[in-house]
Amino acid sequence: MTTGPTTEPTTGPTDLTTGPTHPTSDSTAETRQERFERGMEVLNRVDGESGQRVIDALADVNPELGHQVVAWGFGEIYNRPGLSPRDRQLVTLGMLTALGGCEPQLDVHINAALNVGLTSDEIAEALLHTAVYCGMPKAINATFVAKKVFGERGLLKDS
Amino acid sequence: MTTGPTTEPTTGPTDLTTGPTHPTSDSTAETRQERFERGMEVLNRVDGESGQRVIDALADVNPELGHQVVAWGFGEIYNRPGLSPRDRQLVTLGMLTALGGCEPQLDVHINAALNVGLTSDEIAEALLHTAVYCGMPKAINATFVAKKVFGERGLLKDS
Amino acid sequence: MTTGPTTEPTTGPTDLTTGPTHPTSDSTAETRQERFERGMEVLNRVDGESGQRVIDALADVNPELGHQVVAWGFGEIYNRPGLSPRDRQLVTLGMLTALGGCEPQLDVHINAALNVGLTSDEIAEALLHTAVYCGMPKAINATFVAKKVFGERGLLKDS
Amino acid sequence: MTTGPTTEPTTGPTDLTTGPTHPTSDSTAETRQERFERGMEVLNRVDGESGQRVIDALADVNPELGHQVVAWGFGEIYNRPGLSPRDRQLVTLGMLTALGGCEPQLDVHINAALNVGLTSDEIAEALLHTAVYCGMPKAINATFVAKKVFGERGLLKDS
Amino acid sequence: MTTGPTTEPTTGPTDLTTGPTHPTSDSTAETRQERFERGMEVLNRVDGESGQRVIDALADVNPELGHQVVAWGFGEIYNRPGLSPRDRQLVTLGMLTALGGCEPQLDVHINAALNVGLTSDEIAEALLHTAVYCGMPKAINATFVAKKVFGERGLLKDS
Amino acid sequence: MTTGPTTEPTTGPTDLTTGPTHPTSDSTAETRQERFERGMEVLNRVDGESGQRVIDALADVNPELGHQVVAWGFGEIYNRPGLSPRDRQLVTLGMLTALGGCEPQLDVHINAALNVGLTSDEIAEALLHTAVYCGMPKAINATFVAKKVFGERGLLKDS
Repeated sequence: MTTGPTTEPTTGPTDLTTGPTHPTSDSTAETRQERFERGMEVLNRVDGESGQRVIDALADVNPELGHQVVAWGFGEIYNRPGLSPRDRQLVTLGMLTALGGCEPQLDVHINAALNVGLTSDEIAEALLHTAVYCGMPKAINATFVAKKVFGERGLLKDS
Repeated sequence: MTTGPTTEPTTGPTDLTTGPTHPTSDSTAETRQERFERGMEVLNRVDGESGQRVIDALADVNPELGHQVVAWGFGEIYNRPGLSPRDRQLVTLGMLTALGGCEPQLDVHINAALNVGLTSDEIAEALLHTAVYCGMPKAINATFVAKKVFGERGLLKDS
Repeated sequence: MTTGPTTEPTTGPTDLTTGPTHPTSDSTAETRQERFERGMEVLNRVDGESGQRVIDALADVNPELGHQVVAWGFGEIYNRPGLSPRDRQLVTLGMLTALGGCEPQLDVHINAALNVGLTSDEIAEALLHTAVYCGMPKAINATFVAKKVFGERGLLKDS
Repeated sequence: MTTGPTTEPTTGPTDLTTGPTHPTSDSTAETRQERFERGMEVLNRVDGESGQRVIDALADVNPELGHQVVAWGFGEIYNRPGLSPRDRQLVTLGMLTALGGCEPQLDVHINAALNVGLTSDEIAEALLHTAVYCGMPKAINATFVAKKVFGERGLLKDS
Repeated sequence: MTTGPTTEPTTGPTDLTTGPTHPTSDSTAETRQERFERGMEVLNRVDGESGQRVIDALADVNPELGHQVVAWGFGEIYNRPGLSPRDRQLVTLGMLTALGGCEPQLDVHINAALNVGLTSDEIAEALLHTAVYCGMPKAINATFVAKKVFGERGLLKDS
Repeated sequence: MTTGPTTEPTTGPTDLTTGPTHPTSDSTAETRQERFERGMEVLNRVDGESGQRVIDALADVNPELGHQVVAWGFGEIYNRPGLSPRDRQLVTLGMLTALGGCEPQLDVHINAALNVGLTSDEIAEALLHTAVYCGMPKAINATFVAKKVFGERGLLKDS
């Protein structure tokens, strides 16, 4: 099988809150450039401008890393239908908090979490939950990134 | 100690797939023992027997740690209504994979993830997703714990 | 046992260098607010103003996380009599250095270490000791936080 | 699909000690299966049987993770000409030691390091070097994996 | 080579609970072998047989790593007078718990902690304290190593 | 024993790209100061000014840590002949990327990598390779340090 509905959804409209589009089938030949373009589309849907800025910043030092983030990370993995974008961001928030030292990526992905339907209260609750598994310092570090993002988007609580 | 609807839901039936019960209100006095019992109930719902076994094993070496896992981790945090049990397990799978060296906890929580409504395919997809953020070794280590749990529960694929 | 001396020490004067006060007994009912206030007292004794600033900064993004740091971390754990405040800071310096990426928490806890009786020479020696277990980069990163704190408190050596 | 020198080296003989083959050009369309086969070839050259066993073991729990390890990790990254296989294993030994908890991957990659031309003395020296940056515990843990692999391959010293 | 009080304490009797002996002065020339022997003496005082076993096991794979653990880790760092052996083990327990995946080293150092005067209750309390900073999984993993060591030394509680 | 070929190479000229000088023999007595001076020479060859700045900055807070970085890290380990300086930097780049939160050390060691003969393209390729094992966030964080260093040294690509 080479053509048909399998690849169409990747260029058609997607309801971001219900799930990603189907990946290309095993037998569809794609060029490296086509895979990159597919990933770029997913990246822009999920991360918005902040993802694009990371790719642009990599261009003069390690363009292949930027290519692989897009073509592989977003084109191959994020684009798979087995887990909704909202679910993927929950896993991602957990990972980035646990890894530590990933504040720039948390900034991108707390924005992404809001983009795909998580509320600021759900994100705060997820970061509270991380305290049980990662300890207070990492939970606090991640929460201060959320504070920055929520502040930029007018989502802070009246305290 | 006050009574009333605030604490009732913690002893009534809970639909585990839609969300946890409300925590006690600020003005409800509880004893340490009552908080432990509330946590025990949540622990048993989420983790089942494997959680109980961890608490039992801590009794002769560090009983206070077992108490705090139950009374605080489950009674105070897991029990909050802001995030569904399924969402909490997605965050938890991400954290435990990223931390590394937490294979015993992954065993408990892959079981928990199945208990609260995630399918084995969704868990495998979440662990595939971790490869992008944590790298292949941690994703593979977590997946081999899933292989053990899925095997015990008859959920492996025909390969 | 339900009333009396068990809880009194938490409101009476404490000799911070010899040990924390006794936690409440199992049968003493406390409200969430009472536990928070107990933790606030311990937090202020150990961390001073820098701890308070962290809690304040969490208020508009994740107030429950701030509550749990205080009510659980300080009210439940730090307040226990089994280990002196000085001993707890030695363990804490080791952990924060090893975790990596916890420079903000090291700032708070190097201050705390000085508050509970560790000298700047002992702290420097503890951070030298971390080089054996955590490697030079993490030992150096932690030591530069100590340099900042020692500088603020007039404790740097003439070099 | 285009032909020509760009893709030829991936199927021709390779001198493993001097460098990998060129990746496919941007304009060469490949199917998912073709990319997998290219990765499989690189995997077998570098990791030998132990890599194959990992992929086989993933088949009934997370076959897509096995596919991505091969098609992306080996087919896309390892296969690039910018760094020799020997150099890649030096970087990899450093990473796996630093990450911690990656003993199964160290087993595969200490074998791989020997396969691509590093001597057992160079590997031991590299692991000694990790003590400076990762601390003694991680250096020792990695070295005990080397002891197992060297023992299996008759490379231990007379002590 | 100079003689005198600077180096004498390293061969005289030491009260292990009050502090280590003075390191050699800057102007005392030592051979590599002398530094190793000094470290061996400290290692045996602190870690006992379990430390010796690690050094022996390194002999046929990475003897220089074993040498450096002894000559540098113990001869240069542990032997310094600025922090008592008991204090050093508190820092070490914190680090090894936080690093993760260092269960073999925790075994050695929970034994060491008991050797230098920490009680099993203090060790358990220190590991409870780690839950606040490292999260429950790492605190539990370290506690199960303590359970093994306490069991071997008849120090478990009646539960 | 004090003279002879064993120690001569440490004061003679060294071809930095082919390998380090021989360490002192077991039977050559050295003072602490001599070992420091030997390390300083290696440090200056490998890290250049940026290494010196770290040692200077440690002088008023933890001079012994600075001493040990030089005398042990560089004098004892880096100076050994078993692995070339270029090989050591490949291992080091892998470790520092994997550890996370070591951006200051990556700055020093990306400079060092260029000093000992790695090209900017090889460094970028090594950091791309880390994505497979450490995940995208750590690979990107390390690459942005490389971007800063390459920029300072006029090595960025036209993008």
